[in-house]
Amino acid sequence: MIKALLFDIDDTLYDSTTLAEMARRNSVKAMIDSGLPFKDEQELYEKLLHIIKTFGSNYPRHYDELLRYLNIPWNPKIIAAGIVAYEHTKFGYLKPFPGVIPSLIRFREKFRLGVVSNGIAIKQWEKLIALGLSHFFDVFVTSGEAGVEKPSVEIFTLTAEKFGLDPRECVMIGNKLDVDITGAGNAGMGTIWFRREENAYLKHEGKGPDYIIESFFELIPLIEKITQ
Amino acid sequence: MIKALLFDIDDTLYDSTTLAEMARRNSVKAMIDSGLPFKDEQELYEKLLHIIKTFGSNYPRHYDELLRYLNIPWNPKIIAAGIVAYEHTKFGYLKPFPGVIPSLIRFREKFRLGVVSNGIAIKQWEKLIALGLSHFFDVFVTSGEAGVEKPSVEIFTLTAEKFGLDPRECVMIGNKLDVDITGAGNAGMGTIWFRREENAYLKHEGKGPDYIIESFFELIPLIEKITQ
Repeated sequence: MIKALLFDIDDTLYDSTTLAEMARRNSVKAMIDSGLPFKDEQELYEKLLHIIKTFGSNYPRHYDELLRYLNIPWNPKIIAAGIVAYEHTKFGYLKPFPGVIPSLIRFREKFRLGVVSNGIAIKQWEKLIALGLSHFFDVFVTSGEAGVEKPSVEIFTLTAEKFGLDPRECVMIGNKLDVDITGAGNAGMGTIWFRREENAYLKHEGKGPDYIIESFFELIPLIEKITQ
Repeated sequence: MIKALLFDIDDTLYDSTTLAEMARRNSVKAMIDSGLPFKDEQELYEKLLHIIKTFGSNYPRHYDELLRYLNIPWNPKIIAAGIVAYEHTKFGYLKPFPGVIPSLIRFREKFRLGVVSNGIAIKQWEKLIALGLSHFFDVFVTSGEAGVEKPSVEIFTLTAEKFGLDPRECVMIGNKLDVDITGAGNAGMGTIWFRREENAYLKHEGKGPDYIIESFFELIPLIEKITQ
């Protein structure tokens, strides 16, 4: 019997990919507008992606490193322009996917709700709070606090333990097959894959998802069907 | 002959005091809303002010320190709630004082414009950019980069040098008598005090301001009068 629903955050509860792309593209435009001597926005955007890949997405000085990479002297105006454009764009894009809030309101009537997320605890809570979703969840597990990342079985069993439940009483909903679905499946949980890319299915290895949805609006009838 | 106008940022170009108070009060409410076991908002706000005073306003972990001070275990949800409320409130309050933009547009026709600010260069640029004012200024001097703070004469002479001007060709506009006005006056600049508090005048020592305004709308006619 299903007693808890667990959710991934990024690209499951909100469109993290679009947020990151738009915020980075706007930061590039703002840096050019503030005097960065570079005309090709697309090329500069790709160089920024290279820096983010090299230093990791949580590194706090991407724009400093970008200037260094371009052999441009450190310039606080240009760096500040990148930061402000990123933050202001984030503010606009940090909204739940359509269907998320009504689904969570409905699910709260019958299930306990949790979040299992790879990332830094404060950063992931900031997202849930800015999304207006923090009050829906009883249990919140991040890899930063757990010391182990999805798809490790341990992070899922830890989450079930926090609920005082058996993993078989939990269903994990996430967008990444090899992270959310494989890991939760190996832990004995039910799995629902939020498929956001057409061909993503071809890429996974191991046990596939129990169910597939392509939007949050499909989740309420699916959960009602499998919990009858 | 006056060739350049220099401005302070905080509480001169925008209402920094109100922003900080509202952002901190909203962060306190959000932390209580996220489970901080404390009922008295005013008392918690005062404890937060104590932490900010103790660690300095640029310290990045005020909310962590507040929990420690209250003997409450570290809690990423509560800390994130404080951060998000602060940032979202800041976003709403970071607007120029009435009259700032039309004044700067007008002054650009006849003068070169600069900023002289105590603070960290990137943080101060972030404010100017978020305010939409960064393109008005040719010269930008922060204590962080200059290695010396207002009211030192050096930071004002450095600013005049960056313009290639004599300090006597510059006028400083700022809200703090003992920081902006005394310092610029000692450097030989003209001074206009943006008086925001009724009784602030009583507090200063040394040479007083050449002129006093109480809103930015008074600045255009004053500058026109003294530069005729």
